[in-house]
Amino acid sequence: MNNDTVTTEVLFIKMVLDAWQTQNTRVNDLLGKISDEQLKQETAPGRNTGFYLFGHLAAVNDRLFTLLGIGERLHPELDSPFLDHPDKSGQQMPNVDDVKKYWNEINAALNEKFKAMQPNEWFEKHASVAAEDFAKEPQRNRLNVMITRTVHQGYHLGQMNYLKSK
Amino acid sequence: MNNDTVTTEVLFIKMVLDAWQTQNTRVNDLLGKISDEQLKQETAPGRNTGFYLFGHLAAVNDRLFTLLGIGERLHPELDSPFLDHPDKSGQQMPNVDDVKKYWNEINAALNEKFKAMQPNEWFEKHASVAAEDFAKEPQRNRLNVMITRTVHQGYHLGQMNYLKSK
Repeated sequence: MNNDTVTTEVLFIKMVLDAWQTQNTRVNDLLGKISDEQLKQETAPGRNTGFYLFGHLAAVNDRLFTLLGIGERLHPELDSPFLDHPDKSGQQMPNVDDVKKYWNEINAALNEKFKAMQPNEWFEKHASVAAEDFAKEPQRNRLNVMITRTVHQGYHLGQMNYLKSK
Repeated sequence: MNNDTVTTEVLFIKMVLDAWQTQNTRVNDLLGKISDEQLKQETAPGRNTGFYLFGHLAAVNDRLFTLLGIGERLHPELDSPFLDHPDKSGQQMPNVDDVKKYWNEINAALNEKFKAMQPNEWFEKHASVAAEDFAKEPQRNRLNVMITRTVHQGYHLGQMNYLKSK
């Protein structure tokens, strides 16, 4: 692999991680503008609450550690209330302050891991794809996970922004 | 630029364009599931209608021709009702069938243009960035536009999906 290739890879990685970071920042901006009570409201009548969606995004980010194979996840206890069960299903919910703290911890730890990664590591396969499939579909790499997760964050942020006053 | 670099570029372009195409497909899936009357409903009380968001996505995709510098846009008349003015502001609105037809035309024509592009063209600057800024920030290339537009589509799709029955 020559220098041109490394430069191109570094540029791609920056493009994707910047996009992911932008979505995290937008979630933080929203949290700075609404109260915890507002966050707990439904984003539209009968739809998920903002808190459920926020916890869901925190859980999905936390699962990146294992999905990317870069470490142990920090808060697997987020899965039961925010991933394995739908909103308002009677699960024991953590309190908002704790989830905000976890969200910040998870994203800070992910950013540390990302900084330590070599460019070529982003183009290796992620944990949910078999080696033989990856040989045929090399786009199923770790960086691609970050693209799909970034779009996923944007998707729910569009809904969470309905919590803001008109 | 050697073969390794080209291979990496081709792979990355595929990752990004696949993600963009997935969002277009999801919009189409939604349109296949709801009536025009449902599409015209507000996505949440007092929020944008599904039709406004759909026309907005069509207009934004149409603007890719000029933003990427790959041709003339097809339906600039979408801007006034769906970009320059907010929803429910008394603008003359096209009918739903026409916007669906435009959406398909725009996306088909974009895909044709994309197929004809050489990998390195995706890493050139887009029309909204000055040459001197691009020299310092090479991530502001055409492919990066596709990343941000893909997230933007996901954002509004999250809202449009509230049109579906619970």
